[in-house]
Amino acid sequence: MTGSHIDTQPTGGKFDGNYGVLAGLEVFKTLNDAGVTTAAPLEVVVWTNEEGSRFVPVMMGSGAFIGEFKTDFILAQKDRDGITVGQALHSIGYAGKDQVSPSGIGAYFEAHIEQGPVLEAHDLTIGVVTGALGQRWFDVVITGSEAHAGPTPMSLRHDALLAASHIVQLINELALDHAPNARGTVGMLDVYPNSRNVIPGSVKLSVDLRADSDATLTAMVNKLNARAQEIAKQGKVSIALTQVVYFPPAAFANELVQAVRSGARTIGLSEMDVVSGAGHDAVYMARVAPTAMIFVPCKDGISHNEIEDAKSEHLEAGCNVLMHAMLACASQP
Amino acid sequence: MTGSHIDTQPTGGKFDGNYGVLAGLEVFKTLNDAGVTTAAPLEVVVWTNEEGSRFVPVMMGSGAFIGEFKTDFILAQKDRDGITVGQALHSIGYAGKDQVSPSGIGAYFEAHIEQGPVLEAHDLTIGVVTGALGQRWFDVVITGSEAHAGPTPMSLRHDALLAASHIVQLINELALDHAPNARGTVGMLDVYPNSRNVIPGSVKLSVDLRADSDATLTAMVNKLNARAQEIAKQGKVSIALTQVVYFPPAAFANELVQAVRSGARTIGLSEMDVVSGAGHDAVYMARVAPTAMIFVPCKDGISHNEIEDAKSEHLEAGCNVLMHAMLACASQP
Repeated sequence: MTGSHIDTQPTGGKFDGNYGVLAGLEVFKTLNDAGVTTAAPLEVVVWTNEEGSRFVPVMMGSGAFIGEFKTDFILAQKDRDGITVGQALHSIGYAGKDQVSPSGIGAYFEAHIEQGPVLEAHDLTIGVVTGALGQRWFDVVITGSEAHAGPTPMSLRHDALLAASHIVQLINELALDHAPNARGTVGMLDVYPNSRNVIPGSVKLSVDLRADSDATLTAMVNKLNARAQEIAKQGKVSIALTQVVYFPPAAFANELVQAVRSGARTIGLSEMDVVSGAGHDAVYMARVAPTAMIFVPCKDGISHNEIEDAKSEHLEAGCNVLMHAMLACASQP
Repeated sequence: MTGSHIDTQPTGGKFDGNYGVLAGLEVFKTLNDAGVTTAAPLEVVVWTNEEGSRFVPVMMGSGAFIGEFKTDFILAQKDRDGITVGQALHSIGYAGKDQVSPSGIGAYFEAHIEQGPVLEAHDLTIGVVTGALGQRWFDVVITGSEAHAGPTPMSLRHDALLAASHIVQLINELALDHAPNARGTVGMLDVYPNSRNVIPGSVKLSVDLRADSDATLTAMVNKLNARAQEIAKQGKVSIALTQVVYFPPAAFANELVQAVRSGARTIGLSEMDVVSGAGHDAVYMARVAPTAMIFVPCKDGISHNEIEDAKSEHLEAGCNVLMHAMLACASQP
C-alpha cells in the first residue's frame, strides 16, 4: 500500500454530515485504484439522519444501531407534516429489512469538519479528536408577574426577564469556571407577553452545558441549581429547571487516536489534539467499538449554514489521514 | 350643590379606559338629579382609541384634538386587515364632520384606575396625580455571530444574548439610579436564530425609560449610550440604539391638582400624591388646558388584562372626588 495517496479533490463546501461519507468513499476508491488488500475487512457506513433537522432524535441511525433506541421507536417518529421515518424511508426506497448488530467492529473512524473555530485560529490542518464533551440540556421556566411598565415602580416588580438576564450570565460563568473545554449556552429565549410596555411575566429559555468529564458537568449543574434559587429569591420570581438531554462525555480509544495522530505526522500535516464539542455518530459508536475522529478546519467555524465552507486541501488532507489510520488498524485481521 | 353625592355604584371590573367616561356621566347624572347649575359649562368627552390596540398611534383622539396629529393622518391609519380609522368610524356611524378646536377649555379632569400597585400597597383610596412621567423608547439591535454551541470555545464567541443580558440589567440600574419615580423596562426581546444549540447571532429588544423630568431622562439616555458601547466592546458585538418614542414629562396644573386633593380631604378619603407612569389623554390635554387626574386603586395593579378588577367603593370614591374638583373649578364662569 506504499504510495497510495488521495489526490482527487472533493468538491468544496456544504459538507458537514456528508464529508464523512465522501471521505470514506474516497479512501475506498484510492485503495481500489492502488489494488490494496487489507487483512481486516473495511466498510463505509452512511448513517440516517445525523442532524435531526426533519426528524428527532438526532443521530437516529447510529443510535438505533447501537441499541440506544428501538428500531420501532425510530420508525414511528414524525416530521411536522405527520410523516413517519418509516413512511419516508419507504417513499425513497431505503426501508431495509436487515437486522443490524453492533458487534464485531474492530475500529470506527469518522472524518468531519470541525464546526468550530479552533483549528482555523491555530492555523492547523488536522484535529486529532480525543473524545467528545458530555452534554446536559435544561428547559428553564421563569415565572414573575406581568404588569404595566409605566405605573409599576421598580421595587414592586416581579420581572421574569431581569431574572433571566442573571441566568444567562450564570451559564456563561459556569463554563468559564471550567475553561477551556467547558461550554455554556443559552440559545433559545422566549419572553411573554413580549410587549414593549409590559414587564415580562414569564420567560422560557434553554440551557446547554457541556464538559469533558461527568464530574465537571455535575459541578456545573449543582452550581446552576443553587444559584438559580438565589436569583429567584432576589428577583421575586420562581425558576423551574428540567433536564431534557444527557449525553455522557465520550473518551475515544487511545490506540485509534494515536493512529490518527501518526497518520497526520507521517504525511507531514500540522495537527493538535481537540475535544469535540458537538455530538456525532462516533459518540454513539464509541460505546460499542474502539472509535476516533478526524477534524479538518472550516471557515470561521461555521456549519449548519449556507455559508459553510472548507478548503479542498484540508478536506483532502483529512481523507489521507483517514486512510492512514484505517490502514494501520486494518493491517491485522 | 351642597348635598350632592354619588352613591350609584358603577358596575365593577373591566373599566380601564371606560372608567373615566362612566365617572363623568355619573357626575352629570348626580348634578342633574340634584338640580345643580354651574357658572361655567361642563362637558364629558369620550376620546377615540386611547389604547391603540387596533389602530396606532395610541391616544389618537386627544392627539388629533390638540393638533399633535393631523386629522387626515389619523383617518388614514390602518388595522392589520387594512381597514382605515376613517372606514371603521363610518361603518359604526361615528364619522363626524365637526371641526374641533382645543381652545377655550378652562379645566380638564380625567379619572382613571391607577394601572399600578402603589395605592393598593399604601392602602389608600385616592391618587392625586401631579403629572405624568416623560417617556423615551428605543429599539436596540445587538449583532454578534451565530455559531454552534458545542464546538465554539467561550473565548471565541460573539454572543448577542449575553450582551443583551447586560443591557437588561443596565436598564434596571438606570431606573434605580433615579428612584423612586424613574422606570426602566425591557418588555420585548427576540433572539435569532433562537435555537437550543446555536449561540445567538442577534437580539432585538425594546427599551422603555420613564422619568419625571427631562433632565433625568437625558441623564438616563446618556448613561445608556455610554454603557451600551462598553458592553458591545466587552462582548465583541455591535449595539445600535434608535429612539422610537418621546413623550415629554407632563406637569399638571397646580390649582387643579389642589382641587382634587381638597375634594378627597373634604369627603374624608385617604389620598397621596402620585405621578402617572402611563400615558393618558390627559397628557395631551395638559398641553392646551389646565389639567389634573384622579387615580383609584385596582387589584394588584393589573390592567389591560382579563383579570383587571377595582372595588366599587373605590370607583365611587373617584367619582365623588371628580365631582368636587369639577364643581370647585366650575363655580366661576
